Amino acid sequence: MARSAACPAPSPGASADVADTDLPLVTEGPFAGWRSWSGRDPWETLTGPFYFRREGEAVRCAFRVEAKHLNGLGVIHGGCLMTFADFALFAIAHPLIGTGPAVTVSLHGDFIAAGREGELVEATGEVTRASRSLVFVRGLLTAGERTLFGFSGIIRRLSGP
Amino acid sequence: MARSAACPAPSPGASADVADTDLPLVTEGPFAGWRSWSGRDPWETLTGPFYFRREGEAVRCAFRVEAKHLNGLGVIHGGCLMTFADFALFAIAHPLIGTGPAVTVSLHGDFIAAGREGELVEATGEVTRASRSLVFVRGLLTAGERTLFGFSGIIRRLSGP
Repeated sequence: MARSAACPAPSPGASADVADTDLPLVTEGPFAGWRSWSGRDPWETLTGPFYFRREGEAVRCAFRVEAKHLNGLGVIHGGCLMTFADFALFAIAHPLIGTGPAVTVSLHGDFIAAGREGELVEATGEVTRASRSLVFVRGLLTAGERTLFGFSGIIRRLSGP
Repeated sequence: MARSAACPAPSPGASADVADTDLPLVTEGPFAGWRSWSGRDPWETLTGPFYFRREGEAVRCAFRVEAKHLNGLGVIHGGCLMTFADFALFAIAHPLIGTGPAVTVSLHGDFIAAGREGELVEATGEVTRASRSLVFVRGLLTAGERTLFGFSGIIRRLSGP
């Protein structure tokens, strides 16, 4: 829902290519080279870790499904997919807005297929519009070739006018 | 996202007033008299407990906000509110569909105000339409007099045709 201003916020209206160096870089393990908000965010520390990295102009997010992410039917809980989608909103917008304070205004998700323990779930997407205060993002969560979940959301930048 | 068929599912097309006795009743503490899926659902065991109870023809859901539910800005994380809303979809539909297997098809949420540690967050809502396979639910999350979050979602009953 929100990101802290633990690092200096970009000025209102700051444009693309905010440096990636304002969030901790994972240096070992299967996600070496990825970045995360986990550790700065109690809910994501509990439920994650969730990761993201730049791939050219795009952003990719990922997490490995553990038993804790499942529901009573043994597949990924909807709240977990929505949490990861909320994370992905900010990760996808990150090259544009950095880690300045911002909150989710709305989030919609369509549950397309079930995800299972052990799978690598990834998120990709794009900013569809950005004004000084609002950033519109859409994306997909996938596991291999399967699309699990489609989402769209709106972020409001608190540093904006 | 989904509920298990740990208890016998109602027959397809089962009508209102499924018994409340198919889920564990809390017998002590501040939520004595409420029911929960926590313990049957790993994600909700991690992130909850979340509770619900019948109040006449309506259903009320509740949880007490702990530090683990917060984001980096010190307010409830969007993923937590979406998780509780997903729980509330099934709780609000529970008098109609019981605990038969069902999954979330879509969920939309609007983040209206921030919630804080120590607050009691409650959910109320209603089934706006139910067919044999789909149940449409809408609701609000509140903390005292403040509305935090509005949501609408669609559940698909797996026992349906």
